[in-house]
Amino acid sequence: MIGVAQAVARLSRRELSAEELVGQCLAHIEEREPVVQAWQLVDGEGALREARRIDGLRERPPLCGVPVGIKDLIDTFDLPTEYGSPIHRGHQPSRDAGCVRALREAGAVILGKTVTTEFAVYTPGKTRNPRDTRRTPGGSSSGSAAAVADGMVPFALGTQTAGSVIRPASYCGVIGWKGSFGVVSLAGVHPLAPSLDTLGFFVRELEDVPLVFEALTGRRLRPAAPPRRFGFCRTELWDRVEPSAQRALEEAAQRLALTGVEVVDVELPPGLAEAQIAIMGAEAAVSLRGEPREQLSQRLREMIDEGFAVSPERLRAAHKLAGSTAFPLVDAILAAAAPSEAPLGLTATGDPALSRIWTLLGAPCVSLPLLHGPSGLPLGLQLIAGRGEDERLLAAAAYVEQNLH
Amino acid sequence: MIGVAQAVARLSRRELSAEELVGQCLAHIEEREPVVQAWQLVDGEGALREARRIDGLRERPPLCGVPVGIKDLIDTFDLPTEYGSPIHRGHQPSRDAGCVRALREAGAVILGKTVTTEFAVYTPGKTRNPRDTRRTPGGSSSGSAAAVADGMVPFALGTQTAGSVIRPASYCGVIGWKGSFGVVSLAGVHPLAPSLDTLGFFVRELEDVPLVFEALTGRRLRPAAPPRRFGFCRTELWDRVEPSAQRALEEAAQRLALTGVEVVDVELPPGLAEAQIAIMGAEAAVSLRGEPREQLSQRLREMIDEGFAVSPERLRAAHKLAGSTAFPLVDAILAAAAPSEAPLGLTATGDPALSRIWTLLGAPCVSLPLLHGPSGLPLGLQLIAGRGEDERLLAAAAYVEQNLH
Repeated sequence: MIGVAQAVARLSRRELSAEELVGQCLAHIEEREPVVQAWQLVDGEGALREARRIDGLRERPPLCGVPVGIKDLIDTFDLPTEYGSPIHRGHQPSRDAGCVRALREAGAVILGKTVTTEFAVYTPGKTRNPRDTRRTPGGSSSGSAAAVADGMVPFALGTQTAGSVIRPASYCGVIGWKGSFGVVSLAGVHPLAPSLDTLGFFVRELEDVPLVFEALTGRRLRPAAPPRRFGFCRTELWDRVEPSAQRALEEAAQRLALTGVEVVDVELPPGLAEAQIAIMGAEAAVSLRGEPREQLSQRLREMIDEGFAVSPERLRAAHKLAGSTAFPLVDAILAAAAPSEAPLGLTATGDPALSRIWTLLGAPCVSLPLLHGPSGLPLGLQLIAGRGEDERLLAAAAYVEQNLH
Repeated sequence: MIGVAQAVARLSRRELSAEELVGQCLAHIEEREPVVQAWQLVDGEGALREARRIDGLRERPPLCGVPVGIKDLIDTFDLPTEYGSPIHRGHQPSRDAGCVRALREAGAVILGKTVTTEFAVYTPGKTRNPRDTRRTPGGSSSGSAAAVADGMVPFALGTQTAGSVIRPASYCGVIGWKGSFGVVSLAGVHPLAPSLDTLGFFVRELEDVPLVFEALTGRRLRPAAPPRRFGFCRTELWDRVEPSAQRALEEAAQRLALTGVEVVDVELPPGLAEAQIAIMGAEAAVSLRGEPREQLSQRLREMIDEGFAVSPERLRAAHKLAGSTAFPLVDAILAAAAPSEAPLGLTATGDPALSRIWTLLGAPCVSLPLLHGPSGLPLGLQLIAGRGEDERLLAAAAYVEQNLH
């Protein structure tokens, strides 16, 4: 399965039709979906119809009909949106989310809705990791990561409040991109913790990132200067990272330092992960309190209760810490994307801890599938830039990919 | 027209039926609406039907059928929601916003949708100030403030991103309450600037606040200790306050100091209002970029363009300033709610400047209709407490009302 940039190139030269590309995706889904279960709903007919419509245009929109999967936390006016909860079974929104509308206008074809955990929190959906189906794909953007990793679709949308893009990208071995907080509208995306919720996406090639970014935001990611100085940040949660993953990261930092850039250890003030937990809990409790409690999972009910118990003092301290934490003077930070390769089992989606700090800071992050765990499964290398420095992040990612691949 | 608490008391004793109360509201609206124009849509039949249903219950929900007006920025599954824009004329959401669902469950009767400015920004709707119909009611929650001020409905919902609850409350002479950021879910409320958007409401009596707060949040506002120390904060925008309003506030602070509490001058670091403008602009540009540009007002297009021009550096500095600003060591701050009484004219909704700082800090605020301008029109006295200190704010408001009324 080709990536977004390659697809656009071939579609725009009419070497491939959108209808053919959608057909390839559907054929692959038909074969693999019984095992991977990435999709909440596949709209084959609707996608083929839209692909044919775009094929028939003389002036085609920029994405020329590239298919996309939409996390089922994101409203679509023509397909049900269930937020990963039986409470909303069959729920049909009346409007597209802002990001969906933007993608349609840019010429993407909505292939269907991908599986999300319950309200984008902990309780998994049915999806399995396509690299090893006994393992979790991660969450909450489980289906989007798995579908892109398996080659069912060139790109898919996800959302991140703690680690819901970076972690599944790491576990499934794809590129997960979560831009700076506030760059993409969240209108029509079910809120979890509004001061943290951020849209992201999954692709297989780094060259796809600017195309999807521009389709979503209308802004071009202009080329930033190549990076000269990286920070290596173990974070206060380094002891949660498995020794083999610690070694893989240390080694990556060392290899990077041999390529002619500076790599310095950086530290952030303690308490940021804890601050993220306080804010996420308090805001999620508010976002979800209207849902009928008896139809929520036990785990989610506990999270809501804990969220309501966060004191105003703790919440204020958390916001203050986040607001006063400066990004280190480096082009980008190198850090773990997840504590390990994808864990065995499908009853949990793994630990988002290693993304909490960066989401809290509103920082753009990307997970690159450059490392491996002891079972030979993928492990992401996470790069982070300062908030608003999405272009610097892209330049850093390109450098790391070229030099560590 | 009676307030929420009084209505609940009489309804619960069956001295009044919800049907009668709704009927009184509808009669008043029929008489006054041609002049005030507070409503986008009144659902008389639906409201009467729901009132009768609640009247027929043996165990009635806490609000016992008190009618409410909903700002037309907030989704209702059974009434169109147009966001103050011709783009969404006739738009019918498929779900209730979280706050609407909470109110229905608490036994409020949705009387209709109230006028909002275009997407809750600057361009006014049709509403006039009921105290003087040549004057603006303020915005963006124009219809909700005017409807409550005119006695058309006991309470109504609004939202505030800069000053959209406090300013219209000040201009129309009602109580406007905007709680701490993040206390009420904004699911189903059209986003403007998600890190600032906050739900609020209008009532005519302070005793109504805890009832509405509890209906919206499920949390009781427990009585806080009476205030002992107030701060008087002129803010860096003091020269925007008209001399007569400056005098009214100085005098109020002096009178307050004579009642046995301490009143101290407090200052905040400079730049907070500017920071709010940067954040609001940048986030609003993202929220609204998907709307067809040619159908937006000129003023809104300019705001979107300015928002996209906010640099990442400026945005980061703004968040940092907001996050690192401590609330002064006082029970509550006394400040201006608006620069003057309601200005003449209906082509603009007045200046939100004096609320920007408090909204940025996520602080709970209330405007009390205790002062007057040179034309004898109402002028709000604003009280503000630290983020999360909604109970302290309520105690301070009760004290000020008792002692300065």
